[in-house]
Amino acid sequence: MSLRGEHFVGGVAEASGGEPFAACDPTTGAALAPTYHEAAPALVDAAVTAAADAMAEFAGSAPVVRANLLRAIADGLVALGDELVARVCAETALAAPRVQSERARAVLQLQQFAALVDDGSWVDARIDRADPTRQPQPKPDVRSMRVPLGPVAVFGASNFPLAYSVAGGDTASALAAGCPVVVKGHPAHPGASELVGRVVVEAVRRAGLPGGVFSLLHGRSHATGARLVAHPALAAVGFTGSHAGGRALFDLAARRARPIPVFAEMGSMNPVLVLPQALARRGAAIAEAIVASALLAQGQFCTSPGLVAWIDGPGGDAFAETMRAKFAASQGGPVVHPSIRAGFERSLAEVAALPVTTAAQGALGAAATGVCPTLLAVEAATALAHPRLRSEIYGPAVLAVRCRDHGELLALAQAFDGHLTGTVHADGDDLAACADVVAALRARVGRLIANGVPTGVEVCGAMVHGGPYPASTDARFSAVGVTAIARWTRPACWQDWPQAALPLELRDDNPRGIARTVDGVRR
Amino acid sequence: MSLRGEHFVGGVAEASGGEPFAACDPTTGAALAPTYHEAAPALVDAAVTAAADAMAEFAGSAPVVRANLLRAIADGLVALGDELVARVCAETALAAPRVQSERARAVLQLQQFAALVDDGSWVDARIDRADPTRQPQPKPDVRSMRVPLGPVAVFGASNFPLAYSVAGGDTASALAAGCPVVVKGHPAHPGASELVGRVVVEAVRRAGLPGGVFSLLHGRSHATGARLVAHPALAAVGFTGSHAGGRALFDLAARRARPIPVFAEMGSMNPVLVLPQALARRGAAIAEAIVASALLAQGQFCTSPGLVAWIDGPGGDAFAETMRAKFAASQGGPVVHPSIRAGFERSLAEVAALPVTTAAQGALGAAATGVCPTLLAVEAATALAHPRLRSEIYGPAVLAVRCRDHGELLALAQAFDGHLTGTVHADGDDLAACADVVAALRARVGRLIANGVPTGVEVCGAMVHGGPYPASTDARFSAVGVTAIARWTRPACWQDWPQAALPLELRDDNPRGIARTVDGVRR
Repeated sequence: MSLRGEHFVGGVAEASGGEPFAACDPTTGAALAPTYHEAAPALVDAAVTAAADAMAEFAGSAPVVRANLLRAIADGLVALGDELVARVCAETALAAPRVQSERARAVLQLQQFAALVDDGSWVDARIDRADPTRQPQPKPDVRSMRVPLGPVAVFGASNFPLAYSVAGGDTASALAAGCPVVVKGHPAHPGASELVGRVVVEAVRRAGLPGGVFSLLHGRSHATGARLVAHPALAAVGFTGSHAGGRALFDLAARRARPIPVFAEMGSMNPVLVLPQALARRGAAIAEAIVASALLAQGQFCTSPGLVAWIDGPGGDAFAETMRAKFAASQGGPVVHPSIRAGFERSLAEVAALPVTTAAQGALGAAATGVCPTLLAVEAATALAHPRLRSEIYGPAVLAVRCRDHGELLALAQAFDGHLTGTVHADGDDLAACADVVAALRARVGRLIANGVPTGVEVCGAMVHGGPYPASTDARFSAVGVTAIARWTRPACWQDWPQAALPLELRDDNPRGIARTVDGVRR
Repeated sequence: MSLRGEHFVGGVAEASGGEPFAACDPTTGAALAPTYHEAAPALVDAAVTAAADAMAEFAGSAPVVRANLLRAIADGLVALGDELVARVCAETALAAPRVQSERARAVLQLQQFAALVDDGSWVDARIDRADPTRQPQPKPDVRSMRVPLGPVAVFGASNFPLAYSVAGGDTASALAAGCPVVVKGHPAHPGASELVGRVVVEAVRRAGLPGGVFSLLHGRSHATGARLVAHPALAAVGFTGSHAGGRALFDLAARRARPIPVFAEMGSMNPVLVLPQALARRGAAIAEAIVASALLAQGQFCTSPGLVAWIDGPGGDAFAETMRAKFAASQGGPVVHPSIRAGFERSLAEVAALPVTTAAQGALGAAATGVCPTLLAVEAATALAHPRLRSEIYGPAVLAVRCRDHGELLALAQAFDGHLTGTVHADGDDLAACADVVAALRARVGRLIANGVPTGVEVCGAMVHGGPYPASTDARFSAVGVTAIARWTRPACWQDWPQAALPLELRDDNPRGIARTVDGVRR
């Protein structure tokens, strides 16, 4: 399949547009063909209009149609084979095994949502039956289930060109819910976006669904994304990326005449706390695990551990020294795009202006977007005094925070903003002795991890990928796992409605055989 | 129990403050003792700080403690007896039976949330067990459940001085979740607020919980509410009232450095569509039911039907004439506050500037806040041309919209903004013949009602009280029914966490005996 620099709007390929741009090989810095064009304002509008026009038919489609659509997209991703992997590698400099495993994750997500839609119980059907004899008023028959919100805009992530981009988790969950999707592809990997976009367009076409169910727009300009989010027919936004980007879209959506929900997952420092007995007994091993996690894919994970804290004491110096040695021996490499490198260096410069020690640096990656793995060290009092030291440095950097005592570790945990994850290394009675520290951390993170690393987000129903602001714009939802579908749905209610006109999910005879809550009892 | 003009902050009564104000007897216009004072900024801050300080202990309290707290509040409301009913009647001019039934509803809500907390399954516990042998990576143990967000601000509603005020549905659901609550009482009924507030304070004290679990602030100034919503320690906001008020709080919350969710239920026109066969067969009876619903409590319900539309045809004239006659014969009465009367008259003046006919007016209520029930009539083309005619007139008014044909009724339904409810009267094959109209209505409302009236919101699990903007600021939640608890909670996740340190709800032996989803299967 050759790349043609195409947007897809309402099922139709469209190669024209505004300002040209191209992907960049992060290793060489060279532009990669073909040329893409900024989506013109009219194209943005056309995509949302097509989505709105497709809404009623798609929302009313049989669940099996949507499940099969998701499976067809998964099959299409696999069928793209090495061509897709090669293009992602060329555009992002991510290693092939990493890209292959990400593709497997994207496929798994699509399949999990297909299974969820097939099962059908996700709609949370509730039936409270009538009681005409109730005094003082008869009780009406009231039934509810979750229905799709409307067209969803999805902003692809630079660091997950497959699993959080064109056919990633946001798109899969929105399509599963019955919401048409307009993807704004990330400009760092337009080729991967086009390949995957064509797969989705073809799957929509073969399913006999209206083309407006899926559109893909390319662009680098904030104005393009802003126009998409401001469009009156748009119903919700999914975003994975930087805090600045996510907050800008959130603000735009909140200022609309009709505000719409934005779920932005904006990354995190993912603090790791190493408690005293764990530090004493296995500090070196923990240090090795943390550094390996932090340097995975040049630290380009939302869950990359960016802050490590411990209380000075037995094992502390060895722990710090192991981290230092591991960083010093590390080899940098290319990040996915020059803009990511620029952001990493800007963050390091901001931190360098504060009383922070550069404890170790690895070798600078020789590539065009090569970065230098960096271990920073700071006393807890300094980290407490400077909020910048408690916010993300996106890339291969770790801030090592030495606390003098339990009180400082507690104060640090209490000073944390929201993070996607918090990791605790504990042995013996550490958890009990530091219960206050752990409680403070728990209240500030979406996911708490014991004796592990935060990278590697298991795609399962119990997963929570989100967390208090600024980890996400709405901690009440998760971007990973089947519960992510809730972001794009709302409850709708039918009172005293005739059986024949009710959705199948709410009829007395339960033709879909789903689990329902009837008169307060789950069946 | 005598009224003392007291706020309650962190369990302590506080009578001082800023500018004085008093409740007003809507019948006579006379001020009602005692004098209340605008909550001083320091008092607002103290209430939120006390709530934040109480958060960890309250969130960690045993469910039975919270269930008993809710039941104690319900018992306390009942124990206030006639004194409470008399004060509500005096402050609002609502009829005693209406107030008694509202108290019963408030008690029911508290009891339902107590039962929900006792049962415990609402936390949506999910367990995905580990598989250390999985390839290529071992599968971790991942568990999640819903946890409270943090301190919640609740803004009392003028029209529900018991069921949506100090100890109403928002407070009950937030306390059930484990969130401390700071109520900003509605200034139209400070006496009822004080009576109920004292009950809650006493229940918190007897439960041995920190006083910060509940605070009540009086005030009339927007600045007081704004300071509450802007406080950095606040986590969420519940509001029931006008669009202007709800939107202002939403905007404030979205502009915070750390945005917080606002669930504002902002009222609605609650359109009623009378389809052709229903119109022909029982138009007069439908007209009588609509007018009775619209004039209940002077139209002071969020679900009061404010727009009625039908297609010109058999029965149409008789339907319109019955509505006209019923309005002409109606008797106005006092609304709950001079500000509500002023708002009603302002709305009528706005509409009078448009090509709208005043079809009938009832007698003006003789009371100080008396209003005149008003039936307005308009052609569909006019209603389509003027957005003001498709938005709420809060009070006893109905806009009767005559459509020339099916196409006009469909265009009208498609032009609706979000509403709490939509009602359809249908006979024979009406629903099938007007499926497009009903689908358009369904997509724009929280609750669809067949052959009934929108007033009378059943308090049950399947109820949805909310709906697309501007009915609410977030259609993904409901303000009525046990699902309302979801507004104040978020999922939290534990990975590879030791059994003994897990919340009881997530331990292998399930000591609370709750329903859980284990490896994808609900048990």
